[in-house]
Amino acid sequence: MSISPALGVCYYPEHWPEEWWEKDAARMAEVGIKYVRIGEFAWSRMEPTPGDIKLAWMIRSMDVLGKHGHKVIVGTPTATPPRWMVDKHPDMLAVDANGNRKGFGSRRHYDFSHLPFREESARITQILADALSDHPALGGWQTDNEYGCHGTTYSYSPAALDGFRKWLASRYGSIESLNEAWGNVFWSMEYNSFDQIELPNLLITDPNPIHALDFRRYSSDQVAAFNKAQYDILKAKRPDLPVIHNFMSRYTEFDHYDVAETLDVASWDSYPIGHLAVSDEPDDIKRQYMRQGDPDNAAFHHDLYRTVGHGRWWIMEQQPGPVNWAKFNPDPLPGMARLWAWEAFAHGAEVVSYFRWRQAPFAQEQMHAGLLRPDSEPAPAYEEALQVAQELKQSGIDGQVEKARVAIVFDYDSEWAWQVQPQADGFKHGAHVRDIYAAFRKHGIDIDILSPKTKSFAGYDVVAIPALFAWTDELREAVASFEGYLLLGPRTGSKTKNFSIPARLGPDLSPNLLDAKVMRVDSIPSYVSIPVKGGGTTRLWREKVETRGEVVMEDNEGVPVLISQGKIFYLTASGDRALMQRIADYLIAEADLPVLSLPAGVRTRSRGGFRVYVNYSASPATLNAAADESGYVIGGAEIPAAGVTVARLAKVG
Amino acid sequence: MSISPALGVCYYPEHWPEEWWEKDAARMAEVGIKYVRIGEFAWSRMEPTPGDIKLAWMIRSMDVLGKHGHKVIVGTPTATPPRWMVDKHPDMLAVDANGNRKGFGSRRHYDFSHLPFREESARITQILADALSDHPALGGWQTDNEYGCHGTTYSYSPAALDGFRKWLASRYGSIESLNEAWGNVFWSMEYNSFDQIELPNLLITDPNPIHALDFRRYSSDQVAAFNKAQYDILKAKRPDLPVIHNFMSRYTEFDHYDVAETLDVASWDSYPIGHLAVSDEPDDIKRQYMRQGDPDNAAFHHDLYRTVGHGRWWIMEQQPGPVNWAKFNPDPLPGMARLWAWEAFAHGAEVVSYFRWRQAPFAQEQMHAGLLRPDSEPAPAYEEALQVAQELKQSGIDGQVEKARVAIVFDYDSEWAWQVQPQADGFKHGAHVRDIYAAFRKHGIDIDILSPKTKSFAGYDVVAIPALFAWTDELREAVASFEGYLLLGPRTGSKTKNFSIPARLGPDLSPNLLDAKVMRVDSIPSYVSIPVKGGGTTRLWREKVETRGEVVMEDNEGVPVLISQGKIFYLTASGDRALMQRIADYLIAEADLPVLSLPAGVRTRSRGGFRVYVNYSASPATLNAAADESGYVIGGAEIPAAGVTVARLAKVG
Amino acid sequence: MSISPALGVCYYPEHWPEEWWEKDAARMAEVGIKYVRIGEFAWSRMEPTPGDIKLAWMIRSMDVLGKHGHKVIVGTPTATPPRWMVDKHPDMLAVDANGNRKGFGSRRHYDFSHLPFREESARITQILADALSDHPALGGWQTDNEYGCHGTTYSYSPAALDGFRKWLASRYGSIESLNEAWGNVFWSMEYNSFDQIELPNLLITDPNPIHALDFRRYSSDQVAAFNKAQYDILKAKRPDLPVIHNFMSRYTEFDHYDVAETLDVASWDSYPIGHLAVSDEPDDIKRQYMRQGDPDNAAFHHDLYRTVGHGRWWIMEQQPGPVNWAKFNPDPLPGMARLWAWEAFAHGAEVVSYFRWRQAPFAQEQMHAGLLRPDSEPAPAYEEALQVAQELKQSGIDGQVEKARVAIVFDYDSEWAWQVQPQADGFKHGAHVRDIYAAFRKHGIDIDILSPKTKSFAGYDVVAIPALFAWTDELREAVASFEGYLLLGPRTGSKTKNFSIPARLGPDLSPNLLDAKVMRVDSIPSYVSIPVKGGGTTRLWREKVETRGEVVMEDNEGVPVLISQGKIFYLTASGDRALMQRIADYLIAEADLPVLSLPAGVRTRSRGGFRVYVNYSASPATLNAAADESGYVIGGAEIPAAGVTVARLAKVG
Repeated sequence: MSISPALGVCYYPEHWPEEWWEKDAARMAEVGIKYVRIGEFAWSRMEPTPGDIKLAWMIRSMDVLGKHGHKVIVGTPTATPPRWMVDKHPDMLAVDANGNRKGFGSRRHYDFSHLPFREESARITQILADALSDHPALGGWQTDNEYGCHGTTYSYSPAALDGFRKWLASRYGSIESLNEAWGNVFWSMEYNSFDQIELPNLLITDPNPIHALDFRRYSSDQVAAFNKAQYDILKAKRPDLPVIHNFMSRYTEFDHYDVAETLDVASWDSYPIGHLAVSDEPDDIKRQYMRQGDPDNAAFHHDLYRTVGHGRWWIMEQQPGPVNWAKFNPDPLPGMARLWAWEAFAHGAEVVSYFRWRQAPFAQEQMHAGLLRPDSEPAPAYEEALQVAQELKQSGIDGQVEKARVAIVFDYDSEWAWQVQPQADGFKHGAHVRDIYAAFRKHGIDIDILSPKTKSFAGYDVVAIPALFAWTDELREAVASFEGYLLLGPRTGSKTKNFSIPARLGPDLSPNLLDAKVMRVDSIPSYVSIPVKGGGTTRLWREKVETRGEVVMEDNEGVPVLISQGKIFYLTASGDRALMQRIADYLIAEADLPVLSLPAGVRTRSRGGFRVYVNYSASPATLNAAADESGYVIGGAEIPAAGVTVARLAKVG
Repeated sequence: MSISPALGVCYYPEHWPEEWWEKDAARMAEVGIKYVRIGEFAWSRMEPTPGDIKLAWMIRSMDVLGKHGHKVIVGTPTATPPRWMVDKHPDMLAVDANGNRKGFGSRRHYDFSHLPFREESARITQILADALSDHPALGGWQTDNEYGCHGTTYSYSPAALDGFRKWLASRYGSIESLNEAWGNVFWSMEYNSFDQIELPNLLITDPNPIHALDFRRYSSDQVAAFNKAQYDILKAKRPDLPVIHNFMSRYTEFDHYDVAETLDVASWDSYPIGHLAVSDEPDDIKRQYMRQGDPDNAAFHHDLYRTVGHGRWWIMEQQPGPVNWAKFNPDPLPGMARLWAWEAFAHGAEVVSYFRWRQAPFAQEQMHAGLLRPDSEPAPAYEEALQVAQELKQSGIDGQVEKARVAIVFDYDSEWAWQVQPQADGFKHGAHVRDIYAAFRKHGIDIDILSPKTKSFAGYDVVAIPALFAWTDELREAVASFEGYLLLGPRTGSKTKNFSIPARLGPDLSPNLLDAKVMRVDSIPSYVSIPVKGGGTTRLWREKVETRGEVVMEDNEGVPVLISQGKIFYLTASGDRALMQRIADYLIAEADLPVLSLPAGVRTRSRGGFRVYVNYSASPATLNAAADESGYVIGGAEIPAAGVTVARLAKVG
Repeated sequence: MSISPALGVCYYPEHWPEEWWEKDAARMAEVGIKYVRIGEFAWSRMEPTPGDIKLAWMIRSMDVLGKHGHKVIVGTPTATPPRWMVDKHPDMLAVDANGNRKGFGSRRHYDFSHLPFREESARITQILADALSDHPALGGWQTDNEYGCHGTTYSYSPAALDGFRKWLASRYGSIESLNEAWGNVFWSMEYNSFDQIELPNLLITDPNPIHALDFRRYSSDQVAAFNKAQYDILKAKRPDLPVIHNFMSRYTEFDHYDVAETLDVASWDSYPIGHLAVSDEPDDIKRQYMRQGDPDNAAFHHDLYRTVGHGRWWIMEQQPGPVNWAKFNPDPLPGMARLWAWEAFAHGAEVVSYFRWRQAPFAQEQMHAGLLRPDSEPAPAYEEALQVAQELKQSGIDGQVEKARVAIVFDYDSEWAWQVQPQADGFKHGAHVRDIYAAFRKHGIDIDILSPKTKSFAGYDVVAIPALFAWTDELREAVASFEGYLLLGPRTGSKTKNFSIPARLGPDLSPNLLDAKVMRVDSIPSYVSIPVKGGGTTRLWREKVETRGEVVMEDNEGVPVLISQGKIFYLTASGDRALMQRIADYLIAEADLPVLSLPAGVRTRSRGGFRVYVNYSASPATLNAAADESGYVIGGAEIPAAGVTVARLAKVG
């Protein structure tokens, strides 16, 4: 079940005089917008005082939108509980790692562990479901908004402490089991009962890493439970309508695969320029792409959330111009609001929804652009959205994205584990995943992202499992049966799920798969790098490995960098872009994958019978027509800065 | 009412054996000092235990000083409440933004919102007024000391919360009005009553900008109320004596214009080397002027505080040598203690008072130089002060500074607003004001600083209103009637007073004055700059403006940088020094202002019939005699490093 | 009383199955290990619940170790109180400077000021002493572990406040005396009673420096009292066995001389690579020595702790491979685990004990290498330790280190004082000491470190007292009677013990010793340096001195840098390495000290009849045979990277 590519927009009827609604809805239709999200921050208007439910205005706004052909996505307003709610539940406010209770006055001021607020969340969800489920304009639901935004996944409150202790009791059964699993004999950290376990903040020095990791797992489970409560209510009324949540970029405080177990569609909020500005990418990348965003970041998340969403995904919020939340908020290059949308559709998006219809002149986001200016005149993205809507029709693009030939495993446990224990400052799971992603993508190769619950790699030619914390049973099964090329390391399989070094050391595979033991780690300062023979350098992380495998690459000191045993490759180090490209190129050659020759800054993705090219650079480029293409349906071989070209793929056979 | 230029010194009789007082007073007289400030940190000696008033020593010290011809400025001791006061009012201690109650053991440990301490402040002021008002040596009063120093304007205490709620209730009348004015429909921030409003600290993410701004306004009002209470008491006894407060450099946490409504004279504490060291000026400036201070910073504050003081101002504390409070505390160039004093007099100072007489060998400021060393031998500034006293007599300089032909509006609300919402990290109101100030001053042009309550610009040739948050009624009136050249922008008039974008967008002027709308802001990283055709670059801030005005300058991308409509100019960007100089030069040429040709590092100011040149550079320079000068009364055309030259101006007509 | 050089290891029997103990002990014996430290983190196994003492396993482990010829050092487990202890004494947890109570879950979670916990500490110590004192394998005791690690010397708790007030009452007798001594008339800081004094945290601005210093003194005294309680118990049972504590690198939060008044042997934990990584050494040094550690740092601490230990000292923990606690944790160069041990023995170590026997696969230190890997295979340091054990026998090295001809005073009060009042950011007592240390050592000169309680410098040719806060009576006496060359300054003697400027100003010596007064300090930014005539530069700190001494060196501005009066030299500034080398070279020439010509990166130390050379560089070097040597017993003139050469010294006379 999926839908044809369509545009959407985020709208806040409560922000504008009711007499404006009609014209707004009409103009949205003129742009070609089909989906309108409303409601997700409007609790104080839905329930101005406790129990005083006021949804007539919501219904009237849905009437108006429906009249102009729009489908409405209604957001539950639980990310912004009204002020009176805090009077009712003063301890619903989260406590930060310094022990300070956070206050009311912005948003997301609730603690996922606070069970009475979870009941309030269910209550308002039920009220919306009861009141709006039958509205003909209703097109789906959004749960809450950007779970975890502003660092709100973790709370160090009494509620969290109580929940964590119960979660641990349930996970480990007895305190003796927990002490054994955690290795609490170290530093006399043994507990006599679950009631003695504290949260891992305000300690003298580092907590036991499994203590820190289990707290993250617990906190992630609370997000999933919070979402499930809303999902169950919403689905009970209208099983046919999708329940969606809008995730974020490079946000990993909870396990998105787990939360999405109670979602029909994953969506995410794509602000390419803001994301690059707040990222830890190097300054030269930030400068080069300051008006475009990192050319691989949006694509990576498109592929990630396609998997998170079980194949179905949207952009719920698409940047239309400057944002307000980074240190610097540049104007996008003209054309980017179109490019970003096209790239999303190429990766399989069902809907790309711009945030927001009209720039608000008041409150926190008054410097955040919309499709309209605060004075209701069109902002630049208005015309770009209109163009996208027309081009979607013109191109006829549709259908599913096909399974790729290359896949990479992305794992939230691994993100947490290496944050807890970097050993080399800056060593990150996600960075390794994205480095490999970018290296393959440079050749125009489509990529799938896989979860650690993947039981089979059948159909893939190459699969990478970089920097994996601990093997899951499913991945062990997938590896054992895989007939393609497998790229592991560094650090893959170096821990058990309880954050110990496995008995046979990392990568902890059967010797008949990979006979290798990581004897020692050499973590080196960020200003040092070791050249690799043939090109590239290792940096941050180097492993000394005892192995009977073949040495494919080694560094200038003679330390093996890439080891192979049959079709299993193990990378012992983290590397610069040149090294990661060499690794990818080596595997592409081994696996005999077809490649495209792309100009610098140009990226591509195929969907259905089309291949979409986007030019992230600030200069025009010339495409090399590929053998499997039969001409262009949008644009041409000359692709301007921030331009889009769509080629039609020749039918094979 | 003003007084002839004179020297002063800060003295702490309580720090020294009483038998030293006589000799100290005599030596002060030898130096040529006329004003001696005492008392401002001596509460524990005035009232060693609650109610036990001991002022005899004060009177004896005033006797001794008066005997040697000195006028005494008595400071109220409220910046240093004794320890027993904290036992009496434990909640008088301020609470920081992290929620921590601050402790006793330094100074300024009181909360402006704490009303019982305000009564204590009035009580001790009344006691001093009663006991000392009739003393023949009394020359005036100082209220408290450096309001707000060490970040003490803001407190997040229960007292502040209570005061803030009442202030809001008074300002907005009803909670509905506040919700409307603040735009609290955004993120469901609507309140049901004033008692629900919290202070804007410890939030999950940014507060509503008007919430943050109103808290600053409220806090500023408490400082003004605190000062007024002392002022009313002091004036009641001796309406003829000036009540003064000593302000600081680049300190903007409260509105100085408001506080000065109950002051007769403004003063400020000038530590040029320390100020530069703790400023955010670039490293090359810090290195070049590390022994002199920024060559435009003291002058700017002289002009600012002249306006704050309704035309009357002093230096209450003048740096005499190394200080103790910056990361690095270099020795001044020989001569700077003289130069700084001369520059102050040139800008209209009535008194320049050195801090302090003798370096204290104990406690927090033991590394802070005085006119005397701790062993009572003269420190280098001793001789420099003596020289100044003699030169003041020799030159005969006196009289008022005349109204300048160029003026710039400096506004505390704007400082706060752009701190709350920089949009481009580092965008500051004050930086824009000072950039324009320096660019005009480079040509020897005298400048006035104006408050946002200025109703008329009559008499000025050029007025700049840079980065103004919101129009006041007075400034609108002044702009409408102004016949000179007006320089606005960037960001000028871009908000309403309630921190919303105005309906006609910034700069929000009648189209017949300036037909321009800021459609969009392009805020760019600090490491990026965009060249402007003809020279200079824009940086940090760029606006895309829809206008029917004339484009005077544009950047390499064709974006207008300087727009004009008649004599109103709008600058769309922040720029480097070269661009700001071009803007000033352009206006100087348009307005046909007379200019001086000054060597690098040399600055000048006229007062009465004299023009004072000061050389901030570490090298000597040669002055170009100006046509309106009739010879030198101090120094000559060859001006040494850290030197001073005073020229006599020819009588015109 | 000392012992022949021997190896040791840190072992945690509680971490491993009991059936592994026998094989572990046997392999330790094969390596040549004689001392095994156990027990110091095992409280939860010694007393799993309150009062339930379980030491049978300890005794069994000592039986096994003793059977294989090992001597056991038993650590008291007080650095890791079990979780139940926190239930018993919730307020035993320290409070940080922000007022947050720290939590259980790592280690060192106790407050030195908490008297009930001090009783618990004495109780478990008594239990261990009673149970284990007669065990034949017992070789000594370690008190606690790394006092103060993770910043745990200071606590801002009610217990600390109460203790501090009592300590002050005892030190000053009356509140009037304290007010006078502290100079509390400044800023009205006068107290009416000791109960009004607060801890110097959470203040508005800096506390009175003597307030801050006295709090450090008080806190240091609590560490000493804590140690004394354990020492007295342990010595009562077995006066013949040494009581040892393991100190750290560049750790100065308490006075180690004071704590060692109740120790028989000082030891320290040497992690050269980690120490360099977390130090503030410049990046080029960090890069050059990232796999070796700073070439002078370990040696400095060897010499320091030799003095702290009254001539007896050990390495209790020696780095064997990568550690886990720096931002980056590089692998040592092959050979360093041998080199570090040899260097320690050369400086007089009795025992070098590697940390740890086997790498733990669980908990906080799982990434910290041991002599064995987690899979019990030998790690690289295993073979290096074996080699050291064999070479110790082969060389026959033994005996005491002789008194050096050069000495430097290192003083904890001075460390604290300049942290409290740097005046130039980064000015540090220890940095000056180490700079002088390195400059003398570059010529192969042995150096002693002296405490500020040293009453005589007899026997030394050159003594340096750099950056001394305040003269002690003992040092005044030593200076007055010294006939060798004395190097003072900068800042030496610039304060009284109550943190005031002395009446005759620094350096505060009788004019017939040194007629000099520091009139003024010029503290300059770290990016500025002033060239000294003849070579080198001054940086950070410059004093302007009034003197009748001879000017030996002056800077390009004509400011005296090195002043002399007879054999007393006063250095007025802090300098770069080149200047410090010139100063040392000058004094070496004056004192006619014999020198060695050492290749870059090579360091040396003599012990008994041997001279040990170690090569810290990553390249081989060739030694110049010295006239007093009679051949090599280990290695030769060609010394490889990370190599060791031991020369036999010819008997003189």
